[in-house]
Amino acid sequence: MNSFGTLYRVTLYGESHQKAIGIVIDGMPAGIKVDHELIEKDLMKRKPRELGTTKRIEPDMYQITSGVFNGYTTGSPIHVMIENLDTQSKDYENLIHHPRPGHADFVSQHKYKGFQDYRGGGRFSGRLTAPLVIAGSFAKMMLPYTLSHDLIQVGECKDLSKLDEYLEDIIAKKESVGGIIELKVIGVDPGLGEPFFGKVESLVGQMLFSIPAVKGVEFGIGFKGIDLLGSKFNDCIISEDGKTKTNHSGGINGGITNGNDLIIRVFMKPASSVGVNQDTYHFKHQKVESLKIEGRHDAAIVRRAGIVLENAVAIVLADLFLQQKAYQ
Amino acid sequence: MNSFGTLYRVTLYGESHQKAIGIVIDGMPAGIKVDHELIEKDLMKRKPRELGTTKRIEPDMYQITSGVFNGYTTGSPIHVMIENLDTQSKDYENLIHHPRPGHADFVSQHKYKGFQDYRGGGRFSGRLTAPLVIAGSFAKMMLPYTLSHDLIQVGECKDLSKLDEYLEDIIAKKESVGGIIELKVIGVDPGLGEPFFGKVESLVGQMLFSIPAVKGVEFGIGFKGIDLLGSKFNDCIISEDGKTKTNHSGGINGGITNGNDLIIRVFMKPASSVGVNQDTYHFKHQKVESLKIEGRHDAAIVRRAGIVLENAVAIVLADLFLQQKAYQ
Amino acid sequence: MNSFGTLYRVTLYGESHQKAIGIVIDGMPAGIKVDHELIEKDLMKRKPRELGTTKRIEPDMYQITSGVFNGYTTGSPIHVMIENLDTQSKDYENLIHHPRPGHADFVSQHKYKGFQDYRGGGRFSGRLTAPLVIAGSFAKMMLPYTLSHDLIQVGECKDLSKLDEYLEDIIAKKESVGGIIELKVIGVDPGLGEPFFGKVESLVGQMLFSIPAVKGVEFGIGFKGIDLLGSKFNDCIISEDGKTKTNHSGGINGGITNGNDLIIRVFMKPASSVGVNQDTYHFKHQKVESLKIEGRHDAAIVRRAGIVLENAVAIVLADLFLQQKAYQ
Amino acid sequence: MNSFGTLYRVTLYGESHQKAIGIVIDGMPAGIKVDHELIEKDLMKRKPRELGTTKRIEPDMYQITSGVFNGYTTGSPIHVMIENLDTQSKDYENLIHHPRPGHADFVSQHKYKGFQDYRGGGRFSGRLTAPLVIAGSFAKMMLPYTLSHDLIQVGECKDLSKLDEYLEDIIAKKESVGGIIELKVIGVDPGLGEPFFGKVESLVGQMLFSIPAVKGVEFGIGFKGIDLLGSKFNDCIISEDGKTKTNHSGGINGGITNGNDLIIRVFMKPASSVGVNQDTYHFKHQKVESLKIEGRHDAAIVRRAGIVLENAVAIVLADLFLQQKAYQ
Repeated sequence: MNSFGTLYRVTLYGESHQKAIGIVIDGMPAGIKVDHELIEKDLMKRKPRELGTTKRIEPDMYQITSGVFNGYTTGSPIHVMIENLDTQSKDYENLIHHPRPGHADFVSQHKYKGFQDYRGGGRFSGRLTAPLVIAGSFAKMMLPYTLSHDLIQVGECKDLSKLDEYLEDIIAKKESVGGIIELKVIGVDPGLGEPFFGKVESLVGQMLFSIPAVKGVEFGIGFKGIDLLGSKFNDCIISEDGKTKTNHSGGINGGITNGNDLIIRVFMKPASSVGVNQDTYHFKHQKVESLKIEGRHDAAIVRRAGIVLENAVAIVLADLFLQQKAYQ
Repeated sequence: MNSFGTLYRVTLYGESHQKAIGIVIDGMPAGIKVDHELIEKDLMKRKPRELGTTKRIEPDMYQITSGVFNGYTTGSPIHVMIENLDTQSKDYENLIHHPRPGHADFVSQHKYKGFQDYRGGGRFSGRLTAPLVIAGSFAKMMLPYTLSHDLIQVGECKDLSKLDEYLEDIIAKKESVGGIIELKVIGVDPGLGEPFFGKVESLVGQMLFSIPAVKGVEFGIGFKGIDLLGSKFNDCIISEDGKTKTNHSGGINGGITNGNDLIIRVFMKPASSVGVNQDTYHFKHQKVESLKIEGRHDAAIVRRAGIVLENAVAIVLADLFLQQKAYQ
Repeated sequence: MNSFGTLYRVTLYGESHQKAIGIVIDGMPAGIKVDHELIEKDLMKRKPRELGTTKRIEPDMYQITSGVFNGYTTGSPIHVMIENLDTQSKDYENLIHHPRPGHADFVSQHKYKGFQDYRGGGRFSGRLTAPLVIAGSFAKMMLPYTLSHDLIQVGECKDLSKLDEYLEDIIAKKESVGGIIELKVIGVDPGLGEPFFGKVESLVGQMLFSIPAVKGVEFGIGFKGIDLLGSKFNDCIISEDGKTKTNHSGGINGGITNGNDLIIRVFMKPASSVGVNQDTYHFKHQKVESLKIEGRHDAAIVRRAGIVLENAVAIVLADLFLQQKAYQ
Repeated sequence: MNSFGTLYRVTLYGESHQKAIGIVIDGMPAGIKVDHELIEKDLMKRKPRELGTTKRIEPDMYQITSGVFNGYTTGSPIHVMIENLDTQSKDYENLIHHPRPGHADFVSQHKYKGFQDYRGGGRFSGRLTAPLVIAGSFAKMMLPYTLSHDLIQVGECKDLSKLDEYLEDIIAKKESVGGIIELKVIGVDPGLGEPFFGKVESLVGQMLFSIPAVKGVEFGIGFKGIDLLGSKFNDCIISEDGKTKTNHSGGINGGITNGNDLIIRVFMKPASSVGVNQDTYHFKHQKVESLKIEGRHDAAIVRRAGIVLENAVAIVLADLFLQQKAYQ
């Protein structure tokens, strides 16, 4: 289940502290010029630079080992690999016996019977999103759409002009906070989306909920639309090409793009790693104990997650774009 | 894209006003006793009976044409069919030239080049959810879990003891309202869910967003979790079997069930069909016109959608349950 | 595993003696005129009419219950159903305890734990190929290629002008014989086929080996090519459009069509049902016994299987044709 | 289409002369001890060592970059990579304008519009089978079956005691020859295989026809069974566990393993690369010309292809084995 897509298919592999992480991008058309600048720009946005993001600095030197020749895609699967370098495995040694609250420690111990690579979150590490970003950059190289993301809220801070101030307090408490990110896609063709189970919302939903920490996804006006009566919620069509006066539906009707902007909002929970004492069950001592977990972590992961979500959506759209072409 | 699932696979077909709608359920284990009472009880919950639900009454007589022998599943694909009987096609004749706001009229005309069956919403009709409910009933026959759904809010009405009163007003206005439904699954095994793209949230998200009118999905505390600091959001493990003190994560860590209750909340937008004048583009007259659409519709579709969402989740869990068995 | 295909997807269901068999065809483009004459002509070729074919006569009245509107495909899944009428279930009652040699009786009893519908071969019945033929007829409606099949050999009879005479003897002995069928596709575009696992041979192989009784598949000159040296085996290209002097490769290089005729040869084993005494293990008596199985059967199933193979190949080509369009 | 499998899924990438080739193995159970000796032994069998095999010597140093921890599988996708070292790209420079007969040059130029990496056969190179062999070695680590392969015939040489002598002559002529390999699997559980399209023959057929040069596949007695009457072809069951007197069906009935040995025979055509003059179309000169292609090639690729076929079958069986477990 580490593959996604029908025509534009990605297969993701890797664990935080093994030799490498990477992705195979299958179904990319031949003859697309590879835009390394875009890949680097996108990776840079995911890098921890701002206040509230982890101190683990990975150079994220990606290697393309196949599928590109003379600067253009060949039509063969593209394999992109990033070596893991800055791995401080000692941080994780004492975590075998007491699963960290909020982490996948307990479930992975159960599911993989103790054989999982528990170092640095293993396969559950946010690090896996780096190759996903690259697959999204490739998707953007073939899509005639403009994707963007905006931070809407970080914890209780809605006035983002005061974000650094707010986060200084969070960091001082050794805490973390969640946030809401809004994604927008401009210039989308009408007709993307394949009912019943391949609707735009269905595939975007599957993709976004695969990204660590995502716990809520809504389209258009989303949950807030509960206050609107039907005649107000409905977006009235005002021109031949389907443009609507409002965009409560987020650019999607019946699971199919209607040519208006795609609007998607995502809630990411606070990162599970915090520097304060927390209760958890100690399997060796067979009782609940209070523990403090040290390490390098993100107080506000949302500050650098926007590009991950944006590029994840690009992967979905590339797949639907190719499917649409098959029926034109 | 009308199929869903890896081992427990459903393939949905049908349009609102053609001969029949139905579903093929593939991957059901052999030797499961077919519980017709459950199917009928589940279908009954989806039937329009209460105030605010459509007057189109379909008997929903389902036929099982294969995959069941002497009252037990055979291991072959189960085909269930429901004939369309109460179809008043005349209601839809005048809708060819002016797409109804909020409906899939415009996008389906574009995508299917005018060849779509536009009668009664065609393939976009909520009617398609009847066979989906049946596939969910079959899923529940093999799952040792208890699923339920609760209506949380209907339009602006949060005190549901006053729901009928509230809806009488909505109906009088010929309007519609959306709502929020909460789904709960009790008794779930830990370990369900297949990272990276087959996480519980990913597949439940894909499935739920496939259901007409769903515009938001959140797990556990969901978007409201933005107010919590990490140490408060984290659910502290308090026993050997993974039980947690709180359940902000909705029973899922790292995309894998942790043995606590699954909690999912779904926002459904107001039904697009309302009986008031609305602006839309008239393709023949080439200008925006105000139109009123008559017909039989739901003022509060959420009143009968809970069982659809519940059984849709059952389908996902059946698939993950079988996948887990393969690795035990 | 009852679904096949990436864009043109078929889902097959049914058992020989239950209410119905059928197929869901998903991914058919909208706006294709439905050619009922072709469907009926193709079904007729599969009907037992000639010497050596079973006396079970099924009218094969197919119903299209969805996906077609005003004579054209709508872009929604097409569901085609055939009711089972002429079912003489008593023939099969005594077969529970002693699996018939060559049949799937033993393996299905084992795999489905005794819950399988054993009547008339259940899901292993050749009857399932009728809906497959229809899905192939639909595929041919959208393909600009010409498909055909030829009977090459029936049992030891290579001079088919003497086939009836040969089969009279086989029938008199209450025996059955296998045969070889050659399939040809003319006018195929170059470029069909998706390496590595979606090569033309790969998908045609998967599809043809799914058809009951198929035990060998070869392309071009096939196994006989073992006598040729490389320089003789290689098909020399003689024109700009890729036409070759010989066609030993059967129109496929590297798994991709080269624009020359597709040539596929299929071996079908003799039907397992024969009217002579055969040894088999009797599970109740716990010893090997000699048994004679009565019933209506085909002495030379190959006489009517050609259209099944031909249309099965059409399904594969429709899928690859749509995939190719996505990349043009 | 570079992925194969439902639960045990492999994704293959790479081109002959790029940085690396590799495979992602997804769905491997956690806790399997990695048997490096088996991998090396299997890779060694694929290496050119004997008379009639190419002089391109690749060390085939494989790296496992993820999915293995402390010597055991973690349950995460396993990524195995082999760097391309011994690449003499100059051999291929003059092949742009005249497609080599029998090769994929013409079809890949057409399909990938000139952007394919044409060096060394690119993605069509037999080199891609090295990672496939490794994925098969992993499959064998989890399967309780014994797989083997036997060379049956090489060109016209059926008495393999005289094979070296025969091949000396072929090499002297700068020619190549095809061959037949027989695969056997001992100890297979009954019940593997998922009708209708996931039958053992279907999936083995798809997999084997994906391997370069394979042009024919047959099971059990195969095409030769045409001489047998039904009662002779049928394998009579002689014991409670399904053992049969003969094994004409190759251990498979109705697409499902019956507990007897699996018998599969594969025809591989002569390698396309030969050192003699051959006619082909010269796209620049716009006429047919006689050309001689130099390079390092296999006179008898079948001499080292057996392990590729054997391990490819292991991949299929691992997938079916896990699927069977889900239903036990």
